[in-house]
Amino acid sequence: MIARTPEPPYVAVIFSSRRTHGDQGYGAMSERMAELAAQHPGFLGVESARGEDGFGITVSYWKDEASARAWKQVGEHLKAQALGHSRWYEAFEARVATVTRAYGMERP
Amino acid sequence: MIARTPEPPYVAVIFSSRRTHGDQGYGAMSERMAELAAQHPGFLGVESARGEDGFGITVSYWKDEASARAWKQVGEHLKAQALGHSRWYEAFEARVATVTRAYGMERP
Repeated sequence: MIARTPEPPYVAVIFSSRRTHGDQGYGAMSERMAELAAQHPGFLGVESARGEDGFGITVSYWKDEASARAWKQVGEHLKAQALGHSRWYEAFEARVATVTRAYGMERP
Repeated sequence: MIARTPEPPYVAVIFSSRRTHGDQGYGAMSERMAELAAQHPGFLGVESARGEDGFGITVSYWKDEASARAWKQVGEHLKAQALGHSRWYEAFEARVATVTRAYGMERP
């Protein structure tokens, strides 16, 4: 579930959000968007966590700023964004960032 | 719980992790680190989410790369990092990134 990203630099879109109550079609759309994004040129990976309090962070990783921007403009994704605004999120913040270094570990 | 960050540019440290089972002192240390970080020069905010599956993302925001690096070297934080390695995390990845643009919404 930790994305296997290449050596930096690459782009991260950090999407932090507070969900409204109830599913209201969110779960299905969320899965569909993950599927669609994974097929988009420049997609490197995605990570997502949401606690029981409804606060969640999704980070998607992209080859460059252009591929991240292009994904934001995909028709089906635009529809999902509109529903996010009107129905699924109490609040959100999206931050586009360039990853400059990375390190980690994984137990054998 | 969405951090109130200033206009970009600023630095984001994206810390993605898979926890081991059981608390093992993690909760208390995690709270203490949030407290300590908040007092550190250059700290702008922090966001954190962890699902029931043990996968979590914490993003801390910093004025610049230098303040993020300095926080990594704080004695008590180094001790926590060592325990993270040996005890609390199955796997983690830390990514240091420069936020270049941001947008969001909050319901009134």
